[in-house]
Amino acid sequence: MRATLIHGPGDIRVETVPDPVLSTGRDAIVRVVAACVCGSDLWPYRGVTPTREPRRIGHEFVGVAEAVGEQVERVRPGDFVIAPFYVCDGSCANCRNGVSTSCLHGGWWGSADREGGFADGAQGERVRVPLADGTLAVVPGPVADEEVPGLLTLSDVMGTGHHAAVSAGVGPGDAVAVVGDGAVGLCAVIAAKRLGATTIIAMSRHPERQALAREFGATHVVAERGDAGIEAVRELTGGIGADRVLECVGTKESMDQAIRSARPGGMVGYVGVPNGGPELPVRRLFETNVGVNGGVAPVRGYIEELLPDVRSGAIRPGLVFDLELPLEEAAEAYAAMDERRAVKVLLRP
Amino acid sequence: MRATLIHGPGDIRVETVPDPVLSTGRDAIVRVVAACVCGSDLWPYRGVTPTREPRRIGHEFVGVAEAVGEQVERVRPGDFVIAPFYVCDGSCANCRNGVSTSCLHGGWWGSADREGGFADGAQGERVRVPLADGTLAVVPGPVADEEVPGLLTLSDVMGTGHHAAVSAGVGPGDAVAVVGDGAVGLCAVIAAKRLGATTIIAMSRHPERQALAREFGATHVVAERGDAGIEAVRELTGGIGADRVLECVGTKESMDQAIRSARPGGMVGYVGVPNGGPELPVRRLFETNVGVNGGVAPVRGYIEELLPDVRSGAIRPGLVFDLELPLEEAAEAYAAMDERRAVKVLLRP
Repeated sequence: MRATLIHGPGDIRVETVPDPVLSTGRDAIVRVVAACVCGSDLWPYRGVTPTREPRRIGHEFVGVAEAVGEQVERVRPGDFVIAPFYVCDGSCANCRNGVSTSCLHGGWWGSADREGGFADGAQGERVRVPLADGTLAVVPGPVADEEVPGLLTLSDVMGTGHHAAVSAGVGPGDAVAVVGDGAVGLCAVIAAKRLGATTIIAMSRHPERQALAREFGATHVVAERGDAGIEAVRELTGGIGADRVLECVGTKESMDQAIRSARPGGMVGYVGVPNGGPELPVRRLFETNVGVNGGVAPVRGYIEELLPDVRSGAIRPGLVFDLELPLEEAAEAYAAMDERRAVKVLLRP
Repeated sequence: MRATLIHGPGDIRVETVPDPVLSTGRDAIVRVVAACVCGSDLWPYRGVTPTREPRRIGHEFVGVAEAVGEQVERVRPGDFVIAPFYVCDGSCANCRNGVSTSCLHGGWWGSADREGGFADGAQGERVRVPLADGTLAVVPGPVADEEVPGLLTLSDVMGTGHHAAVSAGVGPGDAVAVVGDGAVGLCAVIAAKRLGATTIIAMSRHPERQALAREFGATHVVAERGDAGIEAVRELTGGIGADRVLECVGTKESMDQAIRSARPGGMVGYVGVPNGGPELPVRRLFETNVGVNGGVAPVRGYIEELLPDVRSGAIRPGLVFDLELPLEEAAEAYAAMDERRAVKVLLRP
């Protein structure tokens, strides 16, 4: 089959790789209907994180189950499935606590399966899915083609934006600031509105993303950054700062922006992968009682909650895809996102 | 009147100082019935924080109002009052949000009042209280002498332990670990039990404090620290760590202990004054979805909630006082706490 590999910074290639095969009895083979490129895929693409050898890449996909192992009970061949960006069993103590990203038996796409075999990267024609019963969410009934982008966001970005909002404790009437206007930040705007926030401040300098943020429910846009951005948020929040701030970037600057935009006693929900790891300024947090909560989003657990709203059109996260390309043009997909010509690119095998 | 001053590391003196006088119309003069020494008073005592010039010290007291300014409405002369460890107006946006420690018009004991005059340190015979209506909590009815220690804990340590538990989101059935066996840590055990935790692990190496922790509701005691302590907590929590961890020390080591003792998706509630400021390891927090919430405890807002349980004896935080001395022996009070001969010392003017 054909699948995407990263060979090094800026070097994305679609190559022929071995077809996946069932091997553990608890796995499934899924034909990928759509995959996409994640903001975090750009870290190795940009050389920020090293690529020591060519490896399979991609961790967001939806598709149709083609075959399942003999112990698989919840997924049947022919089912349309959504895969979260990780593997989980759905039954360990951490999964039961809602933190399936810390599954005691889980793993990651594009790497070895703990039980044996390989979990393919998502940017390919097929993926072998370990622990299929825990990992895959089945979408009931027929799935229309125009539903695919929305469903694909449940694989990562919509669930991740939702996690930022849940981690920050967003509730009815809250004033929420969102740091980051990538796909996750835009989905965080959707999530904040869905959870009842009445003031939603999108921090964005890009006219097209500002427009999408407003379409998703942002009541205000702040284009300034740093001290000016913080001052603008304060002016919109009675002089004290936002009740909840959703950090959806992962840099030292964005975390600083988030912490300083929160009011005393407020909470920062963060989901941006901290690259190189800004350490958090505990003294400032202490003095202001600003909390920090979040992390790698356990999106598997959110799929069933968000799915009805996606299918009904009550929320429309699929709009974050502003470019669609065939899988064979994966290299162009990365370039478009790297150069910010696209918010998020959908790939069709 | 007589009051306590710190002149430098290890140098505590009780001296004659000017009697306080009403000066703003919104203030009160309180005759101190009891004050005490705080763990955070030991930072300047030990020279960890500098003392540039002799200054008044102490920030926890209960007493009887002797006189009130003409604009004071809630406090009358003769009222028994509890003062939180800070001044607040109770009406600004931050106070209304429950973060009275960030009061827009507040201040601290032993320093200048923003409106004019001076807010005396608590370890003295009398204190001028700015913004008396916001700052002071009135205890209804007659107050028996044996009630005084319990009421005094509402000035700081009981409310601070409660804040750790509230910030961590402690609820019914939770497994909670408490890092720190000082007065605040012991009060955090009380708070965890009061909020419904069913497993409460006190981390303590001192037999007397272990015994008090058990009396307050600890179900387990872990004497080990570092990796061994974390392993012990894991063994008591199904192998994954505590749902909530209450950090009541404020050192880099204690925060590390707290963060690593929490299960994935757990929350650290911290109230230990971070001395020198350990920065928080965001990468580890991100990967495990462990949140960090808390800070300088807005205890004023907790007094009314906790007062009935203190007065009924349902909780007995006054037991943290294991030494009582006359005010004139303040220097010995500091020495006893510094040398850990006492958990917490009550001073009677």
